[in-house]
Amino acid sequence: MSNRQVIFKSFGSYIPEVEIENKAFHSHHFHTEDGAPLDAQPEVITRKFEKITGIRKRRYATENMLTSDMGVFASQKAIEKSGIDKEDIDHIIVAHNFGDVDYKQTQSVIMPSLAARIKQGLDIKNPSAVAYDVIFGCPGWVQGVIQAFSFIQTGMAKNVLIVGCEMLSRVLDPYDRDSMIFSDGAGACILSSNDASGGGILSYSAVTHATIEADYLYCGPSFKKSEDATKFIKMKGRKIYEYAISQVPKAMKDAFDKSGKSIGDLKKIFIHQANEKMDEAIIQRFYKLYGIEAPSEKVMPMCIQNLGNSSVATIPTLIDLVLERKLDNHEISSGDLVMIASVGAGMNINSIVYQF
Amino acid sequence: MSNRQVIFKSFGSYIPEVEIENKAFHSHHFHTEDGAPLDAQPEVITRKFEKITGIRKRRYATENMLTSDMGVFASQKAIEKSGIDKEDIDHIIVAHNFGDVDYKQTQSVIMPSLAARIKQGLDIKNPSAVAYDVIFGCPGWVQGVIQAFSFIQTGMAKNVLIVGCEMLSRVLDPYDRDSMIFSDGAGACILSSNDASGGGILSYSAVTHATIEADYLYCGPSFKKSEDATKFIKMKGRKIYEYAISQVPKAMKDAFDKSGKSIGDLKKIFIHQANEKMDEAIIQRFYKLYGIEAPSEKVMPMCIQNLGNSSVATIPTLIDLVLERKLDNHEISSGDLVMIASVGAGMNINSIVYQF
Repeated sequence: MSNRQVIFKSFGSYIPEVEIENKAFHSHHFHTEDGAPLDAQPEVITRKFEKITGIRKRRYATENMLTSDMGVFASQKAIEKSGIDKEDIDHIIVAHNFGDVDYKQTQSVIMPSLAARIKQGLDIKNPSAVAYDVIFGCPGWVQGVIQAFSFIQTGMAKNVLIVGCEMLSRVLDPYDRDSMIFSDGAGACILSSNDASGGGILSYSAVTHATIEADYLYCGPSFKKSEDATKFIKMKGRKIYEYAISQVPKAMKDAFDKSGKSIGDLKKIFIHQANEKMDEAIIQRFYKLYGIEAPSEKVMPMCIQNLGNSSVATIPTLIDLVLERKLDNHEISSGDLVMIASVGAGMNINSIVYQF
Repeated sequence: MSNRQVIFKSFGSYIPEVEIENKAFHSHHFHTEDGAPLDAQPEVITRKFEKITGIRKRRYATENMLTSDMGVFASQKAIEKSGIDKEDIDHIIVAHNFGDVDYKQTQSVIMPSLAARIKQGLDIKNPSAVAYDVIFGCPGWVQGVIQAFSFIQTGMAKNVLIVGCEMLSRVLDPYDRDSMIFSDGAGACILSSNDASGGGILSYSAVTHATIEADYLYCGPSFKKSEDATKFIKMKGRKIYEYAISQVPKAMKDAFDKSGKSIGDLKKIFIHQANEKMDEAIIQRFYKLYGIEAPSEKVMPMCIQNLGNSSVATIPTLIDLVLERKLDNHEISSGDLVMIASVGAGMNINSIVYQF
């Protein structure tokens, strides 16, 4: 798709301090969407939840933090590892879906943008570092990378900081068992133009299904019926599962076919961490489109067991953990062909083929 | 900057129904930032306000509407006038700063994105029409145009719908006199690639100043002190004025110089409608950078008198009104050289040079 090589110079992530195990939800009174209390005991519900999603624990930010603070911490690490001067960054793209929410409050604050707040936190003075937020559901960070790729292609930018940060712990309905999925975190990368050619971003794909699908992930009232109009993150889990396993493999194939590479050369797939069983089904179906079996679990690094679904933060965090060799026995070598794939509210799906 | 012509195919706007005159604020009890009641009578305050800002009235949306609904209405008009099939749109970019806020509520809802909601409202089925929101203060719609320009350059898109929609009436502090500035509205355009060359978008500039400036426009508590933690749109008016008159002319000159055109050929400047006196000062200083006097008021169409500051919606609405010959005696002819310039929360400034 391009003659100018566009590469990830570095990654950084921030994993919040507070660890919440599944047993923390044993004191919850879960209700159905219709407001009726669930018959099953919380212990039974959490055990079933763990079996399906693979999530054993998740991280929440401390009371004194905001989403943009986590974005600053992840960015600082990415900038430090990149070796570039922070004043040489010429675009700051920040993905999130709930803005900054004060502890025990409900308002999402997005003015000024979180990108402006992160630029302020990083004390970047160069006015040419244009800072904006992109709202695109969980795939927002990946879409930021695709946008930055376009800006680098046209010469609009050379070094782009792309941040994904989300604090879902502040928008959870305690009466909804789906709340156990969500967590907090931040990940960031520096994407840069490079003089060499042949590697870097090879191809991408992106789609938005927003007729009935726009209502699959949404903000709605608590499952415990009351007069309170406060809205929380809500999902139609079954619909999302069916949508994801049918549409994500297709979008991944679209991206991969454009890369011109051979499927046998694919080393890793960094997929959005929303549900372990769903991710496994997506990978199996993706390889099936090429008429082959999915290779071993080594192809798909997972951090959902310990970190839950931190929305836009999961993929950059996952890549950072692998590059830092902090995730099981996963590693990346120069020349490795990898894919990135994400799915979330919109509904949106995107995918990138990348050669390290 | 480019060989591929990128043109505005059409504009559309939605001007809300409810007209609010300045006298509607005579019943308000205004306070200072410190919480002290203002000594002056509301009648005196509104008279002074009108003299400085030029605002005589503004429009608010009706109770049953959401920001994204207004975006749908403006988009429908732009699509109709463009003559293209809505399914040929391949990017939907929506600028706003407060998401969808229910009537008499305070939560900003941005999941799913307003772009997904607008795509849903337009019933656009093509999955390739990638829909995302950009958060960039009042200049968000202009930044959406700059992003779309990049996507068209790289072949990522051909027909982009760019929407600016904002409902500030739902985030106003009734105790803050600055609330009189703000209003509701939506504007949209279709930006497309074109086979011809020489016209369309000629050049642009964009900057973000986000050290101390990130606190000039922000969300803060009511000026009437209480225990309520609800946040409203807040501005440091004097700081913004000084920032804008010093920085906007420079950013405009940066864009104009890149166009290679002669300043004498500039026919119109479509500037963000925030404050009439401020806009006049910016234009004077811009021309002064070229050592000439600002031409007659014919160069700067204004709609602030009747519509107030509708944030991201003002510029597309203003251009639509002029193209439709609904604004005084302003008109645009084929070949006319114009500029667009905006400033707002971030702080962000951008500018585009365009030939019709």
